Amino acid sequence: MSKGSPHFQKLKQEFIFPIIEQKLEEFRKQHPNKTILNFGIGDVVFPLNSAIVESLVQAVQEMGTTVRGYGPPTGYSFLKEALVDYEYGNYGISPHEIFISEGTKADSVNLLDLFATKCSVAITDPTYPSYLDGCILDGRTSSPTEDGLYQQITYLPCLEENGFAPLPPNHPCHIVYLCSPNNPTGIALTKEQLSTWVAYAKKHQAILIVDAAYEAFISSPNTPRSIYEIPGALEVAIELRSFSKSAGFTGLRCAYAVIPDKLYVQVHQKKMPLNTLWKQRQNIKSNGVAYPIQKAAAYSLQPHVQKELRKNIEIYLTQSKRVKEALLAAHQTCYGGIDCPYIWWKAPQELSSWEFFDKLLHQVNLLTIPGSAFGRQGEGFVRLSAFATPDTVDLALPRLSSIDFL
Amino acid sequence: MSKGSPHFQKLKQEFIFPIIEQKLEEFRKQHPNKTILNFGIGDVVFPLNSAIVESLVQAVQEMGTTVRGYGPPTGYSFLKEALVDYEYGNYGISPHEIFISEGTKADSVNLLDLFATKCSVAITDPTYPSYLDGCILDGRTSSPTEDGLYQQITYLPCLEENGFAPLPPNHPCHIVYLCSPNNPTGIALTKEQLSTWVAYAKKHQAILIVDAAYEAFISSPNTPRSIYEIPGALEVAIELRSFSKSAGFTGLRCAYAVIPDKLYVQVHQKKMPLNTLWKQRQNIKSNGVAYPIQKAAAYSLQPHVQKELRKNIEIYLTQSKRVKEALLAAHQTCYGGIDCPYIWWKAPQELSSWEFFDKLLHQVNLLTIPGSAFGRQGEGFVRLSAFATPDTVDLALPRLSSIDFL
Repeated sequence: MSKGSPHFQKLKQEFIFPIIEQKLEEFRKQHPNKTILNFGIGDVVFPLNSAIVESLVQAVQEMGTTVRGYGPPTGYSFLKEALVDYEYGNYGISPHEIFISEGTKADSVNLLDLFATKCSVAITDPTYPSYLDGCILDGRTSSPTEDGLYQQITYLPCLEENGFAPLPPNHPCHIVYLCSPNNPTGIALTKEQLSTWVAYAKKHQAILIVDAAYEAFISSPNTPRSIYEIPGALEVAIELRSFSKSAGFTGLRCAYAVIPDKLYVQVHQKKMPLNTLWKQRQNIKSNGVAYPIQKAAAYSLQPHVQKELRKNIEIYLTQSKRVKEALLAAHQTCYGGIDCPYIWWKAPQELSSWEFFDKLLHQVNLLTIPGSAFGRQGEGFVRLSAFATPDTVDLALPRLSSIDFL
Repeated sequence: MSKGSPHFQKLKQEFIFPIIEQKLEEFRKQHPNKTILNFGIGDVVFPLNSAIVESLVQAVQEMGTTVRGYGPPTGYSFLKEALVDYEYGNYGISPHEIFISEGTKADSVNLLDLFATKCSVAITDPTYPSYLDGCILDGRTSSPTEDGLYQQITYLPCLEENGFAPLPPNHPCHIVYLCSPNNPTGIALTKEQLSTWVAYAKKHQAILIVDAAYEAFISSPNTPRSIYEIPGALEVAIELRSFSKSAGFTGLRCAYAVIPDKLYVQVHQKKMPLNTLWKQRQNIKSNGVAYPIQKAAAYSLQPHVQKELRKNIEIYLTQSKRVKEALLAAHQTCYGGIDCPYIWWKAPQELSSWEFFDKLLHQVNLLTIPGSAFGRQGEGFVRLSAFATPDTVDLALPRLSSIDFL
């Protein structure tokens, strides 16, 4: 019989979101009359903006009269150029340094293809689960130890003590995953904090993979929207961004990876540009993103469309603020929610994440995500997503401000 | 400095299609007044069918009023169920055994994630380049030998002598890539030939990965459209299919992999179902395909839409027939073109593939793909794609029937 990959068995848990979906379904079956207040999955709750719909319709109709077959596997120039005009030109990034893709999750994992298996990886804890799971499936770890950690991974703790801002380790790592604004803590790194990381990467010739899927929500002053605002970042950082949350594209699938020319890896004593390797990888493994979706993504960057799209972003941020204020008023301990619509809620009475999750679901019908799903340092927290419908928020607020059930 | 993957350097050549694009561009610059007859890349030449356009527009407009966020990473049930109703139910396949994806190229390469690196791989020669390139990037080969072969790969020669039908090797292989109808030879395997492969796989507990992206073009009797027409295939075969050529989706990106429940790999003495592993892999690495594209794919399976889509398929096949007849009338040696709009044209005078490619481009302005790009046994051939505009075919026929230039 064919031998299977030995790496799937090393995964500590199944991917969290399908588990939550299943829990939710079970709860609904048991309690068909209860209204669940969904603060769980971070998915958009509004229909597509009409400008995006129009752009998609136009592109689709164009495909009915003009042939639009295979596009470039790394994305159409019109979208790359639009991104340069919109923002990346300011940092000295050229269109060929931008690669369009189906999503940031895929990019964050697929980028590992470019690095030798022996490269050491640092990952913030807690963090979005795919970075670690991708490393595991890619054979970069052994099985987890008894405490659920992977010995080959350097964990960068994001704790109350450090304001959830991970600090560089005191040893060199080759690849560092940062997520800012962070999913799940909702905390974005400041200019100083990012500068520390760029300095670390320069010193150790490390590559930073910066997941900035939530950059559109950054509201704090002194908080860069792009790692390339930090001098020197062009030599050390890959930035990942998405149209999912900024333009409501979760159901359309469009994202991009910025891989500057100045990023290198060493292969047999030779310096190889990561940009070239990624292009080669994409040619071999992908056929790119659908034409109409790239057209709509480019259109979303137009100033008048951005203005419209900002409205939803503001709604999510306002909701985040209202929910956080309600929790604080109820003497709860919680973080984030300013630069990203995720609130990192500390479980009272030393409850575990899953205990708190169950309590919230069963006692006030509030759906969250257990923090432990995002890493060991997530234990004792739940993530509350303000990607909720306004109705949900209105229903939730009175329940939150009187949570004597705890 | 971070160490790069050592595998990119093992690639023998760059991916062929971008090279051809570049050659074409250079030629156009040098000869701006010459009309190139493009029989090169296998891409659709007609706009999207109006029924597909309508379905896309409707789904996009629906997204403007109803929230359609993240879909299931393995695809929507409505599309899986439509595929079961359309055909796969006949073979005993259930919706959960079908996985929707961005394309067959991606699936064919990504499936390697499920297998241990030490699994032996057999690949037909010539064949679509991504299977081999995927194995190389995945670290399943050493560098090529001087004759350009990879020692770890079992090559299955497709030659004039065996009618371009690869025969099972006389030793066990764990994974076998078959492509039927074959890209580039245009030859589809018969029931008997596929049965031989199923028997081989059963005997050696091998997994067949059958790329059937061109199944819609099968016209010969006794030639199965699906591997599952062969008894026992449910226990040994993964089938890959695409909407690219059957419904003109090259610019939209939608395909699927069928992974029956009965396929297993062994992991540490345990039998693991490939179906479960792939689901896990897709959850971790992908967010699935855009909602409107899956809607249009499902709609394309409706009988009245299929009838419309068949018209383009018939045009490509008729073109293929006309071109092949013209070549045969001009005493050329060529194959395929019946079950797939690719004609496998043998270079006269023992010219190499690239010599013949250049001659055709420069002397009659005919763009083909050098056969050597598809493997060593492709040397001395060019692939001629009948995915050409009717105008191109009309212009080409007189040139082809009087090719005294050779």
